[in-house]
Amino acid sequence: MCIFCDIVSGKAPSRKVYEDEQVIAFKDIYPQAPVHILIVPKKHIASVVEVSDEDGPLLVDIVTAAKKIAEQQGVAKRGFRLVANNGPDGGQTVNHLHFHLLAGDVMGRMC
Amino acid sequence: MCIFCDIVSGKAPSRKVYEDEQVIAFKDIYPQAPVHILIVPKKHIASVVEVSDEDGPLLVDIVTAAKKIAEQQGVAKRGFRLVANNGPDGGQTVNHLHFHLLAGDVMGRMC
Repeated sequence: MCIFCDIVSGKAPSRKVYEDEQVIAFKDIYPQAPVHILIVPKKHIASVVEVSDEDGPLLVDIVTAAKKIAEQQGVAKRGFRLVANNGPDGGQTVNHLHFHLLAGDVMGRMC
Repeated sequence: MCIFCDIVSGKAPSRKVYEDEQVIAFKDIYPQAPVHILIVPKKHIASVVEVSDEDGPLLVDIVTAAKKIAEQQGVAKRGFRLVANNGPDGGQTVNHLHFHLLAGDVMGRMC
């Protein structure tokens, strides 16, 4: 059972802001910034260290989605931060690869 | 002129921890965590929003480098955070794509 797989399949709800063939993106339920979106590959990959050679196009799709979401949210010019957490020290709470897009204010420290 | 291109070419110094065909990685001069490494593609890409379809293998190489560096630095099991800042709000200070690898402690807030 994976909550992000359930969101991808529509079994679990999310406040979706973007979707394409390879990724889905929705609002983080505990936002740390005025704009805080999670970009999630539809394919279940446990974490960034489980990415394999075949996932190149998926990674490009994730950063392209980030760009599109930034435009949609009106923060493309001001910029944004992309974060991938891995493992316990990293603060990864769901074992399905995801990138946090944070924006809407000047970003402070990274940890 | 780009300081990261100068580091890639060897014109400027860095405390290098990793290098392969596509990327170079070195210690951040203003560390925000016990382990704070910058992973930089040798190819000059201004930022994450300038990544193009052909850069898939490069993105895979970046995350693979992150995994190898985490192992080398003894933080692979405890985990790490990967951060890409884009634009003024994001806190991007060098206009050459780079990912911060932060580790060595439990990561706190993302911004």
